[in-house]
Amino acid sequence: MKHKIVVEPPGQNARTIIDTMSRNCYNSTFVYPLVIEDGEGCYIKDVDGNVYLDFTSNIGSSPLGYKHPDVMDVLKEYSNTGVHKIAGQDFYCREHAELAERLLSIVPKGFKAFLINSGAEAVENAIKIAYRRMGALPGVSCINAFHGRTLGALTFTFSKPVQKSNFPELPVKRIKFCSSDDDPEIDAVENLLKENKVAFIITEIVQGEGGYNVASKRFIKMLREYTSKYGVPLIIDEVQSGMGRTGRWWAFEHYGVEPDIMAVAKALQVGATLYRRELDPGQQGVLSSTWGGGSRIDLAVGAKIIDVIRRDNLLSNAERIGGIILKALRDMADDSNGKVVDVRGIGLMIGVEFISKEVRDSFIINAFKHGLLLLPAGIKVIRVIPPLIIREDEVQEGVELMYEVLKVI
Amino acid sequence: MKHKIVVEPPGQNARTIIDTMSRNCYNSTFVYPLVIEDGEGCYIKDVDGNVYLDFTSNIGSSPLGYKHPDVMDVLKEYSNTGVHKIAGQDFYCREHAELAERLLSIVPKGFKAFLINSGAEAVENAIKIAYRRMGALPGVSCINAFHGRTLGALTFTFSKPVQKSNFPELPVKRIKFCSSDDDPEIDAVENLLKENKVAFIITEIVQGEGGYNVASKRFIKMLREYTSKYGVPLIIDEVQSGMGRTGRWWAFEHYGVEPDIMAVAKALQVGATLYRRELDPGQQGVLSSTWGGGSRIDLAVGAKIIDVIRRDNLLSNAERIGGIILKALRDMADDSNGKVVDVRGIGLMIGVEFISKEVRDSFIINAFKHGLLLLPAGIKVIRVIPPLIIREDEVQEGVELMYEVLKVI
Repeated sequence: MKHKIVVEPPGQNARTIIDTMSRNCYNSTFVYPLVIEDGEGCYIKDVDGNVYLDFTSNIGSSPLGYKHPDVMDVLKEYSNTGVHKIAGQDFYCREHAELAERLLSIVPKGFKAFLINSGAEAVENAIKIAYRRMGALPGVSCINAFHGRTLGALTFTFSKPVQKSNFPELPVKRIKFCSSDDDPEIDAVENLLKENKVAFIITEIVQGEGGYNVASKRFIKMLREYTSKYGVPLIIDEVQSGMGRTGRWWAFEHYGVEPDIMAVAKALQVGATLYRRELDPGQQGVLSSTWGGGSRIDLAVGAKIIDVIRRDNLLSNAERIGGIILKALRDMADDSNGKVVDVRGIGLMIGVEFISKEVRDSFIINAFKHGLLLLPAGIKVIRVIPPLIIREDEVQEGVELMYEVLKVI
Repeated sequence: MKHKIVVEPPGQNARTIIDTMSRNCYNSTFVYPLVIEDGEGCYIKDVDGNVYLDFTSNIGSSPLGYKHPDVMDVLKEYSNTGVHKIAGQDFYCREHAELAERLLSIVPKGFKAFLINSGAEAVENAIKIAYRRMGALPGVSCINAFHGRTLGALTFTFSKPVQKSNFPELPVKRIKFCSSDDDPEIDAVENLLKENKVAFIITEIVQGEGGYNVASKRFIKMLREYTSKYGVPLIIDEVQSGMGRTGRWWAFEHYGVEPDIMAVAKALQVGATLYRRELDPGQQGVLSSTWGGGSRIDLAVGAKIIDVIRRDNLLSNAERIGGIILKALRDMADDSNGKVVDVRGIGLMIGVEFISKEVRDSFIINAFKHGLLLLPAGIKVIRVIPPLIIREDEVQEGVELMYEVLKVI
């Protein structure tokens, strides 16, 4: 397959649907008028027959791309199931047990799982597990962090003002997200913990929505060291970076640390909070959710995704292809007349920083018109997060498109 | 179909799955060892071949019961779709537009929709819309309310201590949920609004998890009157009571009022926040969610459910059969030697209150062993919420089972 623009988007079918949406729905975070109909491999087809090369993976939710034969088998199997969605924390199903078991096979030893509906809910339950142990103390998160938009998770999000304006917060303290090993703020964390009782520290390893910022090795190592020293749970949010995106199952594996609690979603198809066994709330009913662990199709697809990533060595692919993209994009930055100012990332989680928001926004819109899907992060960054199955020739196609776009902006 | 217990649950297959769950997962709100495999009509089959009459609808999530031909058609259609789950607030899909349009056809005129992943998230977004307009003031909710378990929604939940213990809260004021028109607390609400600036009042019409308590007509009417008078948004949580459960689309229709904002989920298959157009946050990016409006199978099933409820007159069925169950259960209460102390509800949302928690718990476990699925609410209540498609002979079968259970507890 290859990208192919047959009618300038939005075509007639897309326009009809978007008009209905504009009349009836809140205009959320739509960046360009893509109305998705179908897809195959790393390509998405819109309702007017345009085909786009996808460098978004639906924000990491489609690690195997589209129409993957193993995923299609699962959908076929469940199209005959009379009960495809259950109250999954009140009644059991095989898929819940199986996905939890798969997950526990790829996280640090001694963890337990709680399955839930979204990344925001995975974070909510991560912090609830910490509060349950520590009490209703302030939590600590990083500047530019994004942990979700429910009001608990949103308290610890500190990405864009529009996401938080007028909303109340839980008690919170903020620390700098350090990208350099030399940052003196790294050591300030110990003082914070020495002087304050806190319920947890939560952080990403690679900030997603906040701008694709990569943590310094020493920052993460010291967070682990200080939190252990002061008996504070360390929560790592792997909602976007997890499930193989960075070339390992979890981004924290690149840093030689293990969290006490972790939040997972997106590529997993459902939300999951994983936590050290000792932190289990024990008593029944502390955590629950009607659909948590009960969307049997999503649970079964999630388990299949773990199997396929393992079977097809997609971690290696993410690492290898990630290196190729990183180099190609750095070359492109050199050729960009200063429009691209930084390229950074790990594996297939790559951010490209532009000189300004305007240039970035124009790049994204024009890429879309040329047949390449990209999404923004932070103020002036784009995220390059293709499906983990991506091949070298597809990378080549995408990079060529980006060169074309650079010419017209 | 009929209930049929072929092996005392949990059978061997169920035991294996539950053992795996016990090792690996938080023991959430499981009440009895039901491992769901399949279902048809109002019956659920477990993994050992037992067949249960379902008076839970998976907490209202299965209004058309199981293996409904119209739902199966949707599952078949989507089993060929290459992109079944998208980032639904970043990219568009037809199913998002269609479900929103269906929803707006059954809520008060002049509303808009925001689709999301769960009932908790529907409430989170309802209160965010109110805060956005009113500022980060305290919110008001009722004693025994249940609005979800994410920390924003949980602040306004006040059902069981285990759900909240050790968790921090947003600013909140509590009022009594009045079930009697004569309750003097109804008029105290006006003083609260006169003396305090608040961001919203949120309530259910029939409290679900909190114990199947039915609001007094005057209580709801006065909440509407006072909130209008003081310019405070009234949020009605229809997560469990909505989508036809009470014999009308929304429980508030029985009360002759309209909310400013409403939260929907469960029978809808996804979460939805509906709000008066004037309350739209306007600016892009105030609300979002990766999977909100993007789980295409759930969205399509949700739209189909609305169509079928309408086509098959399931609102009338809920009202008519609800009346039959209510009468039968009240007769049963009279025959119960004081074990059942109250039967109450609207349509097919009925609570049966027992003399004690112990008797209630024993009733539920024994019903399960006899082939009837029930779930608890509040301290000593069971909820009777069969699928909206239920027929009189199935009610008869369920009531007979309940009489049998009464004999053994």
